Amino acid sequence: MRQTKLFTKTRKEAPADEVSKNAELLIRGGFIHKEMAGIYDYLPLGLRIIKKIENIIREEMNKIGGQEIFMSSLQERETWEPTNQWDDKEVDVWFKTKLKNDTELGLAITHEAPITKMFKGFLNSYRDLPSSVYQFQTKFRNEIRAKSGIIRTREFVMKDLYSFAKDEKEHLEFYGKVTEAYKNIFKRTGIGHLTYLTFASGGMFSKFSHEFQTITSAGEDTIYVDEDKGIAINKEVYNDEVIKNLGLSKEKLVENKSVEVGNIFTLGTRFSDALDLSYQTEDGERKPVFMGSYGIGPGRLMGTVVEALSDDKGIIWPEAIAPFALHLLSLGEDEEVQKYADELYEDLQKKNIEVLFDDRKEISAGEKFADADLLGMPLRGVVSARSLKENGIEIKARTEEKGKIISKEELINLLKPSH
Amino acid sequence: MRQTKLFTKTRKEAPADEVSKNAELLIRGGFIHKEMAGIYDYLPLGLRIIKKIENIIREEMNKIGGQEIFMSSLQERETWEPTNQWDDKEVDVWFKTKLKNDTELGLAITHEAPITKMFKGFLNSYRDLPSSVYQFQTKFRNEIRAKSGIIRTREFVMKDLYSFAKDEKEHLEFYGKVTEAYKNIFKRTGIGHLTYLTFASGGMFSKFSHEFQTITSAGEDTIYVDEDKGIAINKEVYNDEVIKNLGLSKEKLVENKSVEVGNIFTLGTRFSDALDLSYQTEDGERKPVFMGSYGIGPGRLMGTVVEALSDDKGIIWPEAIAPFALHLLSLGEDEEVQKYADELYEDLQKKNIEVLFDDRKEISAGEKFADADLLGMPLRGVVSARSLKENGIEIKARTEEKGKIISKEELINLLKPSH
Repeated sequence: MRQTKLFTKTRKEAPADEVSKNAELLIRGGFIHKEMAGIYDYLPLGLRIIKKIENIIREEMNKIGGQEIFMSSLQERETWEPTNQWDDKEVDVWFKTKLKNDTELGLAITHEAPITKMFKGFLNSYRDLPSSVYQFQTKFRNEIRAKSGIIRTREFVMKDLYSFAKDEKEHLEFYGKVTEAYKNIFKRTGIGHLTYLTFASGGMFSKFSHEFQTITSAGEDTIYVDEDKGIAINKEVYNDEVIKNLGLSKEKLVENKSVEVGNIFTLGTRFSDALDLSYQTEDGERKPVFMGSYGIGPGRLMGTVVEALSDDKGIIWPEAIAPFALHLLSLGEDEEVQKYADELYEDLQKKNIEVLFDDRKEISAGEKFADADLLGMPLRGVVSARSLKENGIEIKARTEEKGKIISKEELINLLKPSH
Repeated sequence: MRQTKLFTKTRKEAPADEVSKNAELLIRGGFIHKEMAGIYDYLPLGLRIIKKIENIIREEMNKIGGQEIFMSSLQERETWEPTNQWDDKEVDVWFKTKLKNDTELGLAITHEAPITKMFKGFLNSYRDLPSSVYQFQTKFRNEIRAKSGIIRTREFVMKDLYSFAKDEKEHLEFYGKVTEAYKNIFKRTGIGHLTYLTFASGGMFSKFSHEFQTITSAGEDTIYVDEDKGIAINKEVYNDEVIKNLGLSKEKLVENKSVEVGNIFTLGTRFSDALDLSYQTEDGERKPVFMGSYGIGPGRLMGTVVEALSDDKGIIWPEAIAPFALHLLSLGEDEEVQKYADELYEDLQKKNIEVLFDDRKEISAGEKFADADLLGMPLRGVVSARSLKENGIEIKARTEEKGKIISKEELINLLKPSH
């Protein structure tokens, strides 16, 4: 992509009312646009990151047998009343609206109830189990405050996976697979080393749950980490009994601020009992289906990457989710430089290598460098009169201080085609 | 995909309250699930079709320079008031809701206003023009009636493209490119031969517009088609003057029922005037940006394909959007048959050929054939004791009456890998 064609521009300042680092950097870089408090649009650079995160999640969900679907946002009262979740006094984050005939509708806060109801039409026998479905679909949450940028918003896409099993044993087998899949996802998106499987309270649906928490000072949560064992305890359930039950010792646990980047819930039969989702066993009995639910928000993950990995110059995207593998800069008005950079860009395009090409003229080298640091592609390549003297491109990793000059052929070998 | 793993099942009957053919067939096939009147979920088979349609649209939008974004559904009053579209008396399909502090919000019916507002932050000079952006994002419309299945729903994903130009001339150049891109899209999705560029009234934003209308008896619109010239006039603007202006003759125009599968609007400066989106010309003047908007609903397109191309046995998917290229059926309990079909399926999987494998046992040949007709994959391949006698697979196109037996190698050569 040529920066002269990209409709977004970097800016020096974020909106004055923006207090989170992730939104500030992402708005300045033109990755997102603030529609209003707690509600953001994804612009071309930002959407490329979201899609890469989604594709990684999708691959991992497919690998464990998840089948992708896409459910509606609009929800009816009958779906949520059986679990006592329609009442605003019970669930206080609903956005409600109305049909023309005054029927009240809600905007899905999550999809446990409708998926349970839908499965009644498809699930009948033990032969239909185990089964799991997932989607990437918008959730709406009427939060009172929104001050964490894209980490906590009033409208966001979530990957939600739901599992159906014969009993707790079959459920736990799948639950274990999801745990591994989630670990893969956080590793692949570049925050594996900062992310811990965390013991937490059950939230909406069950007594206990597991979360994945990523350490960053911007986090709203507090966790106690056992680095060696690679697990943590959320402050909300942190007490002597839990520490003992988990075989941990208080002395080794270190307090950290963190962001919840994923959660996995055992729902048990709460929804299947209330909504009457049962199956016939081999013996001809009817039994309620044993369920689980598992969430990751790609936007929240993206925001967490920014919080956890940026430096004072800007963002540092991990390779697997960076919008482009290379940020190519041409410096100066020199015609030879322009021509060389232009041809290099076209060559890389032909090889399906993802390049953002800063082909802007009348922009100083300093400004281009500052923008490259702000935008945070893993690798920067500079074509200048100086680099051409040495017959090459000066490349520098975003995380390194110093660059080096390499030939065009070496650069091409360094970069992987996107498909 | 093995049908024994697919969580959906075909069914004999659609819900009693379902009056449209498209929803009836799609529900019976397990492509979609009815959440409530006018609101549907997409199940694995249906979502595969939507994604193929979206990818075709995306390719065509990228080809003409569109940049993909993703905007929020929640909208604030200030965005829509300048064009007088917030008032329910002016636009009567809003779903409205409220923040906790009682601020009224709306669910996007479309995105002209917010995109114009957003572009104020990025567009300043004639150098920034022309520009165009698009998204696949949910629209909400509080329709009074919903009886056309997935063709007209209260919640649907739309591909909406917005263009920004210096003046009408530059706008019309891009408008022409979109017209061609839309023709490509309808051709590639298999309804090109039934779809006409149609002269229509302007709807929400401008005096006149162009629609793409697909002929089917289920259509809510009436158009007058000149088959030779490949264009049509919508009944709403059908009069002697318009016929004359278009250089058509009344005698050659044939009345047809049709579905609007796409529309392209010249917005002019309506939004840029109201929301103050201007640019600086080469001469240093400020001028309002000249805009256009262009929509296609992938779900509506899918529903229209069903209406236009199905027969009395079921759906007939065009190759490019079919969920699977091949529906492989194994018939009978014969172990040799099972083994042959199983190995064939695994071989095809390895070659990235998209196969739905009806590996169900205890299901009669008749039921399998009926399901294959209902589900409508372009090609059916049957492995049976009879086909194995001739050392092959009996293949039959969905649109043909009779099949023929070919070898495994011939079958593999016939099918294209999906990537």
